[in-house]
Amino acid sequence: MSKVITPREKDYSKWYNDLVVEADLADHSAVRGCMVIKPHGYGIWEKMQQALDKMFKDTGHVNAYFPLFIPKSLFEAEEKNAEGFAKECAVVTHYRLKADPNNKGKLIVDPEAKLEEELIVRPTSEAIIWNTYKGWIESYRDLPLLINQWANVVRWEMRTRLFLRTAEFLWQEGHTAHATKQEAIEETEKMLNVYADFVENFMAVPVVKGIKTANERFAGADETYCIEALMQDGKALQCGTSHFLGQNFAKAFDVKFTNKEGKLDHVWATSWGVSTRLMGALIMSHSDNQGLVIPPKLAPTQVVIIPIYKGEEGLKQITEVVNSIKVKLQQRNVSVKYDDRDSQRPGWKFAEYELKGIPLRIAIGERDLASGTVELARRDTLTKEVVKIEGLELHIETLLQQIQSDLYKKALERTVGSTHHVSTYEEFKKVLDEKSGFVYAHWDGTPETEEKIKEETKATIRCIPLNNKQENGVCIYSGKPSTQKVLFARAY
Amino acid sequence: MSKVITPREKDYSKWYNDLVVEADLADHSAVRGCMVIKPHGYGIWEKMQQALDKMFKDTGHVNAYFPLFIPKSLFEAEEKNAEGFAKECAVVTHYRLKADPNNKGKLIVDPEAKLEEELIVRPTSEAIIWNTYKGWIESYRDLPLLINQWANVVRWEMRTRLFLRTAEFLWQEGHTAHATKQEAIEETEKMLNVYADFVENFMAVPVVKGIKTANERFAGADETYCIEALMQDGKALQCGTSHFLGQNFAKAFDVKFTNKEGKLDHVWATSWGVSTRLMGALIMSHSDNQGLVIPPKLAPTQVVIIPIYKGEEGLKQITEVVNSIKVKLQQRNVSVKYDDRDSQRPGWKFAEYELKGIPLRIAIGERDLASGTVELARRDTLTKEVVKIEGLELHIETLLQQIQSDLYKKALERTVGSTHHVSTYEEFKKVLDEKSGFVYAHWDGTPETEEKIKEETKATIRCIPLNNKQENGVCIYSGKPSTQKVLFARAY
Repeated sequence: MSKVITPREKDYSKWYNDLVVEADLADHSAVRGCMVIKPHGYGIWEKMQQALDKMFKDTGHVNAYFPLFIPKSLFEAEEKNAEGFAKECAVVTHYRLKADPNNKGKLIVDPEAKLEEELIVRPTSEAIIWNTYKGWIESYRDLPLLINQWANVVRWEMRTRLFLRTAEFLWQEGHTAHATKQEAIEETEKMLNVYADFVENFMAVPVVKGIKTANERFAGADETYCIEALMQDGKALQCGTSHFLGQNFAKAFDVKFTNKEGKLDHVWATSWGVSTRLMGALIMSHSDNQGLVIPPKLAPTQVVIIPIYKGEEGLKQITEVVNSIKVKLQQRNVSVKYDDRDSQRPGWKFAEYELKGIPLRIAIGERDLASGTVELARRDTLTKEVVKIEGLELHIETLLQQIQSDLYKKALERTVGSTHHVSTYEEFKKVLDEKSGFVYAHWDGTPETEEKIKEETKATIRCIPLNNKQENGVCIYSGKPSTQKVLFARAY
Repeated sequence: MSKVITPREKDYSKWYNDLVVEADLADHSAVRGCMVIKPHGYGIWEKMQQALDKMFKDTGHVNAYFPLFIPKSLFEAEEKNAEGFAKECAVVTHYRLKADPNNKGKLIVDPEAKLEEELIVRPTSEAIIWNTYKGWIESYRDLPLLINQWANVVRWEMRTRLFLRTAEFLWQEGHTAHATKQEAIEETEKMLNVYADFVENFMAVPVVKGIKTANERFAGADETYCIEALMQDGKALQCGTSHFLGQNFAKAFDVKFTNKEGKLDHVWATSWGVSTRLMGALIMSHSDNQGLVIPPKLAPTQVVIIPIYKGEEGLKQITEVVNSIKVKLQQRNVSVKYDDRDSQRPGWKFAEYELKGIPLRIAIGERDLASGTVELARRDTLTKEVVKIEGLELHIETLLQQIQSDLYKKALERTVGSTHHVSTYEEFKKVLDEKSGFVYAHWDGTPETEEKIKEETKATIRCIPLNNKQENGVCIYSGKPSTQKVLFARAY
C-alpha cells in the first residue's frame, strides 16, 4: 500500500496534513483537538528537547515540576492573564465516576463527587508557579530563581491542526524571578536569543527577533518578545516567545523580598516558552512533495543503510561490510540504522525513508562489494553519488554538516526572497495577495489601525524587529506619521 | 535559619515528610494532593529517567505521546479497568470560563460550554492507547509495537503523601502489542527484569520479584508482576509493575491482526510502569537523620567542593587549585559543583549538602594548599579522610563506585535481616508487630483468607516470589494445605 501525499502546489494545507500523518509524525486522536505524537515525530521532539534542555542548563536554569491543575481562585488572581485564557480552559468539576444505574456497564459522573472549587487544567503555569514562589522567596539571597518546566498544557482551541494548534500540546515554560527590573529584562532577552540560536542552528530555520505590539502581547506581560519564521507558503509562524512580566504576578500573588538595603519590594518576573508547534515550523520550512526533510542535527536517525541482495549468502556478505561501516559511523556520533528486513523491497524502503526525512541513505549491493563503493543519496537535494567505502565515515560527517548549513541557506534565501517593503496600502494588499511573505510597512502605532488592517487583510503585525531601522514615514493605513516600518504577515 | 528534621526514631513518618521538604525534593501545593517537585528532587528524577529511558531503548522500545484526556465512552470499554479506576477519576466537564456577572473580577464555569461527552484525565492510558493501536495494526508485519510514554497521570487519592501517593504523579508507561501470547509474556517478564536491574543497580535498593495475587492485580490484567522493596521502617513499597494484559484490551477495542497464516486474531498486550514513587523508595532506603543519601549513579551532583578561606586572596588561590580538580573530575564524568558563595559560611554549607545527600564533599583550606591535600567526606558513612590532591580524581572515581555498592550491601543486609519465616498465625502477628519486615508464610490460595488476614493485621500479600520454593505446609490462617510460602508485609 503506497502512501500518497497531496503535492504542495495543489493544496499546501492538505500537503502538510498528509505529510504529518504519512511520515508517522502525528495523528488525530479520539479526543477533539488532541493529537497522538507518533514515535518518529516524538523522536524528533526528543532531539529538540535535549538540545534546548542543554542550552537552558548552560545558561544556569534548572528543571522542576508544578501541578497540572490550577484552582480557580488562583487562576483569577492575575486578572489580565485570567481574562486572556478563560475562554479556552478545560475545567475539572468532579473527582469520581460511578456505575450508571440505568445502563449496565456504563459510567456516569458521580454528582456527590463535585469539587468544592473547580480546577483549571493549566493553559500556562504562571498562576500556580507564582503562588508557589511566594513560599520560596524571602530575601535577595533566594534570587534569582531560574526554573524551567517540561510539561503538557491545554487550551481549548476551536480550530486545530496537528502540531500547529492543538488542544493539548507539549512545551517547556521557563519562569524566573529577579531582584531588579533590569535583570529580568536581560533574562527575557537572553532566552529570546537562546530560542533564536536553537531555531536557526538546530532547526535550520531563519528567524526575525522582535517585540509584539500591545494587541499581541501575552496576557499578563509588560512586554512580549518573539521569534518569527516564514513558511514555504509565505505565511509566518511564531516560533517562541519570551515575556517580561514586570511585577504583575508578584503583585497578584504578593511575592515580596527583602533587598540588600533591607527594604521590601515585589519580585520581577519573566516567562518563556516553545512548544511542539516547532515541529510544524520544521516540517513547513524544509519538506517537499516526497515528504519530510529533517536537518541532521535533529534527525533521530541520520543515516539509513539498505542492502540490495539476492539470497541469504549475498545478504550475509553485505551485512559484514555494513557492520564495519556502522561501527565507524557510530564512533563519530552519527546515528545509523541498518534496515535488512526481508518483508519489504529496497524500492519500498527508499520511498519510506525519503518520506520520513532521513538525511542520508546508503544503498549497498553485491556489485558494490567488489568495487568497494556504496551509493549515497542526500534527502534534501535528492541527489546521489557513488562513494568509496574507505573513508566513508569522514565523507558522511562532512556531508551532514553541509546538509545542515545548506538547509539553513536555502530557507534563508527563501525568506529573504519573500520579504517585501511597501509604502502604500494598495501595494501592501497586492503584495500580500500575489506574493505573500513578510511585508515591512509603516504603521502609526495605534491598536485601532492594527485591528483595521487585520480585519481587512488578515495580516497581523508579527513584531517590531529588534534594532529596527528608524526612518520617518507615514502609516500605510492612516497616513499618520511613523518612525519605523514594522513586520506584517498572514500567520499560522 | 537552620533546617530541622524530626529524628527517624521519634516519628518515621514525620522524618520522611521533613526530609522531603527540607532537602528541597518536593513540596505540597495549593492543589489538594498534588505536589511541586522542586529542582533538587527533579534533578534526581531526571537521572532516573535518563537511565530508564536508555534501558527501554536498548531493549527495542521507542517513545511516543498520547492524549491526556480519555473520552468517557472509551474509558468504559474495558470494564474491569474502568471499574478499577472509576472511583478516583478527575473529570473535565466544561471547556470555558466566563466573567461572573455578580462578582467583578471573578470567573465562573460557563454553563453553555458543557462538553457533550465528559473527559477523564488519564489515570493510566491503556484505553486511549488501544483505541489508537486499532488504527495502526493490520498485519503481523505491524507487530510487535514496543512503545513507551513519559507522562503525568491523575488518580484522585484521598490520603496522599509526597512522592508515595499523590493525586498527580509523573511516570512512564510502556504499552506493547504482540502477535503471540508467549511473546507478550516474555515482554512482561523482560520489563520486570529491567525494572529490577534499575532499582538494584542504580537506586541501590534490593527487590523481590514476584507475581501479584488476583486481589492485587492491575484492573484489566491477566497477570501482574511486581518488584517489592523493604523500607527502613520495615514496611514494603511496590517499586514497579509489569502487566500481562492477555487479549483483554484488544477485545475491548477490537484490535485484530492478520497472522502469517492469513487468519485474523486479537492482539496480545502488556503494559508496565514506574513512577515518581521511586523517589520515595530511594529516600526511605538510604537516608538518615542528617538528611538524604543519594546513590552516586543518581546524584545530579556527585561531589561538592567547599573552600575554607580568609579574604579574597586566599579564595583566589584555593579557586585556582579547585578549578584544576574540577576539570580532572569532569573528564572522568564525575559531576562536581564548587560552592564559593560568600553569603553562607562553610559550616552552613556542610550541613546543607549533607541534608541534600551529595555523595562526596571536598573541603579545601589555605593550609591544605601547602600540604597538597584536601579533606574528603563521605555522605553515606559520615566519615572523613585527608587525601592527596595528586590522583584525587582516581580516588574519587573508585570511591563513588564503592559508595554505590556499599549502599546496596547495607540495604540488602537490612532487608535480609528483616525477612522472617513463620509457621503459625500467632507468630505471624507477633513478628509483624514486634519486628515488622517481610514475612514469608503459607497461604491457602484463596482471596477470602487474604482478605481476612489484611483486615486483621493490615498485612497484604506483596507477591508470590518468582522461582518460589515449593514446599508442602498449611495455611497460617485457615489450616488448609498450601504448596508454598508467599511474601506478606505491611506496605505503603
